[in-house]
Amino acid sequence: MYQTKAYAASSPASQLASTTIPRRDPTDLDVQIEILFCGICHSDIHQARDEWHDMMPTVYPCVPGHEIVGRVTRIGSAVSKFAVGDIVGVGCMVGADHDCPTCREGFEQFSPGTTFTYNSPDKHGTAPVTYGGYSDSIVVEEGAVLRVPANLDLAGAAPLLCAGITTYSPLKRNAVGPGKKVGVVGLGGLGHMGVKLAHAMGAHVVVFSRSMSKQEDALRLGADEVVISTDANQMSKQAGTFDMILDTVSAEHDVNAYLNLLRRGGDMTLVGVPSKPIPVSSLALIFGNKSLSGSMIGGFAETQEMLDFCGEHGITSDVEVIGIRQINEAYERILKSDVKYRFSIDMASLKSE
Amino acid sequence: MYQTKAYAASSPASQLASTTIPRRDPTDLDVQIEILFCGICHSDIHQARDEWHDMMPTVYPCVPGHEIVGRVTRIGSAVSKFAVGDIVGVGCMVGADHDCPTCREGFEQFSPGTTFTYNSPDKHGTAPVTYGGYSDSIVVEEGAVLRVPANLDLAGAAPLLCAGITTYSPLKRNAVGPGKKVGVVGLGGLGHMGVKLAHAMGAHVVVFSRSMSKQEDALRLGADEVVISTDANQMSKQAGTFDMILDTVSAEHDVNAYLNLLRRGGDMTLVGVPSKPIPVSSLALIFGNKSLSGSMIGGFAETQEMLDFCGEHGITSDVEVIGIRQINEAYERILKSDVKYRFSIDMASLKSE
Repeated sequence: MYQTKAYAASSPASQLASTTIPRRDPTDLDVQIEILFCGICHSDIHQARDEWHDMMPTVYPCVPGHEIVGRVTRIGSAVSKFAVGDIVGVGCMVGADHDCPTCREGFEQFSPGTTFTYNSPDKHGTAPVTYGGYSDSIVVEEGAVLRVPANLDLAGAAPLLCAGITTYSPLKRNAVGPGKKVGVVGLGGLGHMGVKLAHAMGAHVVVFSRSMSKQEDALRLGADEVVISTDANQMSKQAGTFDMILDTVSAEHDVNAYLNLLRRGGDMTLVGVPSKPIPVSSLALIFGNKSLSGSMIGGFAETQEMLDFCGEHGITSDVEVIGIRQINEAYERILKSDVKYRFSIDMASLKSE
Repeated sequence: MYQTKAYAASSPASQLASTTIPRRDPTDLDVQIEILFCGICHSDIHQARDEWHDMMPTVYPCVPGHEIVGRVTRIGSAVSKFAVGDIVGVGCMVGADHDCPTCREGFEQFSPGTTFTYNSPDKHGTAPVTYGGYSDSIVVEEGAVLRVPANLDLAGAAPLLCAGITTYSPLKRNAVGPGKKVGVVGLGGLGHMGVKLAHAMGAHVVVFSRSMSKQEDALRLGADEVVISTDANQMSKQAGTFDMILDTVSAEHDVNAYLNLLRRGGDMTLVGVPSKPIPVSSLALIFGNKSLSGSMIGGFAETQEMLDFCGEHGITSDVEVIGIRQINEAYERILKSDVKYRFSIDMASLKSE
C-alpha cells in the first residue's frame, strides 16, 4: 500500500480539497497508472454531493473522476497486454469478474461482480470504497485498462472514457450509419460527443436546441441541421423522419414531442437522467412501433472499440483544460452549462499541491 | 351499389341497432364476403362512443367490427388469389396503396394510403366512411383479404384478426422462442392470445395477475407460472429475468415495476392504451439498456403469417359466441372485463333482423 495525492469531498456540502489517499501495491494482475488527465462528468458532482443517496449513498472521503487517461508506471507479473510507458485509459469500471454470463456477453457495467471507479466497495480492502481519478495515480485490474490511440490529444481523449462510450454505445446499437437520420437532444458534454460520433459514422445529424445560439457550434461539430425545439413549425416538419434520437438532457422536457419525430420502428435512447419520472404517451409509442430506451456506458470491449473508432476518425472531446485547484469553480460552471463542452483536469497541477 | 344489413351506433350515447348500409358492387380488384363471425374489440366501443374524438372523430352511423371471418361470395375479374366459397378473414384494414415505402416494407398499418375497416374515409365514395364487420356482407380489396386455415373454428378465429396480430407482432419482433422468458400483463382478450402465442412459440410464459383467481385459467391457456403482481416478494424474485414483457393493460398501472423485471437489453411492449401519460423512470430503462416499446396490429403479410402459425398450432381465441341482439349487453360486459376472453358474434343472427 502506498499514499498518493488526491482531491476529495469530505461531506455533501464541502468543497473538494487536497488530501492523500491509499492505493494498493499492484498485484500480479494489476496495472499502476500515473494519471495525466481526468475529465469531469456530471455524475462526479452528484456523487460528491450525495445526491444519489437513496440509490448509492456516498462514502466520504469521496474522490470522483472516471474519465482517466494516464501512463503505465508499473505492471503486475501476470500482466501481458500493457507495458510501462503505455498511454492508457480507465473509465467507469476498475475491475470485473469477467466470468459471469453478463460479463461474457460484454456488458460488465451490469454485472454484480463489477467494481466501479469511485464509491464502489473496494474488494481489495485498501479503503472502504474505491477512489477515482482526481488523483496522482491509480491501480486498476488489467482487464479494466484500455488502449488510447497514439494520435489523440490526451486532454480531449479523457472524456471519451465516459461521455464517449455513453453516446457511442446507443448509436451502434441502433446501427447508425450512412442513410440514417439521427437527432441529438442537448448539446453539452454528452450531446457534443453524440454529434461528433454520429457524424463520423456517416449519419445525417440533426441537433435540437432551444435557441439559435448553438447553431454555429453544432454545425462545426458535425451537425447537418439545427432545429429549434421550441418552434412548433420547425418540429412538425421533422415528424416521422428520424431513425434514432439520442436524448442527453437531464432537465425536465417533453419526450413525446421527440417520439413523434421518429419514423416507423425508430428508437429514442435516454442517456440523461431526469430526476422525476417522464410522462410518456403510449400512443406516441404504439403509432409507429417505436421505442424509448435507456443506455448506460458500455462494456470493456465496446469502450475499446469506441476508442479505436475515435483514433481512426481523430475524434476527441472539446475540452477546457483546468488545474485541480479550479475544480470547485468548474463544478459550479457545469451546473450552469457554462463549458464547451467538458472540463479536463491537467493532473500535473496536483503535483504541486 | 347494394344494401346490406348491419348494426350501427347513430350517436355517441345511443345503443347499437339494426339498420341497412350501402356496399359497393365489387370492382375488378374486390372480393365480396358474406360475414360469418365478427369479434368484438374494445376499440369498437371507443369508436362507437366517439371516445377518440380528438384523434379520430366518429362519423355516424358507425358500424364497428374489424375481426371478420367469412365466405367469399363474389370476386372481381382481376382477383387471382381467392375463389368463391373460400373462407377468409379481414382485420383492421380493407385497402392500401401497397406501393409506398411503408407498404413495401410490410407496415401498411402506418401508411397514409391505408383504408381502415371502419370510420375511415371511403375512397370508393360508397359512404362518407367505411363500415365494419357488424354486417351481413363486406366488399374488400383483394390485397386486404387473408386466408383462414381450414382447421380453425371460425368463431374463435375471428379475434385473431385484431387480438391475434396485435400480440403476435411484438412477440415476433422480440424473437420470442425456446429459451426466452416472456411475461404477459393482463389476461383479457389481448393477454390470453399473448399467452397462447408465446407458449406455442416455445417460450417460458409468466402471467402477471392481481389475484390468484386467474391462475387455473392462465395455466390452461399455456402459462408456465402465474405471479401475483401485488405481492412485492413474488415480484422481486423475478427481477432481471424477463427477455420481454407484453403489457396489454389499458388501465393505469406502474410500468416501472415491470421494467425492473426485464433482463439486460429486455423490452416491454405496450399494446394497451392507458388514457393518461405513463410515468416512466429513466433509470429503470438506463440500468440494463432496456426499452419500452409500442406496437400496433401488423401488416397484411405478417397477419397472414400469424394466421398460418395459428393454423399449424391449432390456436384460436377463447370466445363466447353471441347473437347480434346481445351486442349492447356485450359492450357493458367488456367494460367490466366479464368475458372469457372475447365475444364473437354469429352473424347468422343478423339475417332474421
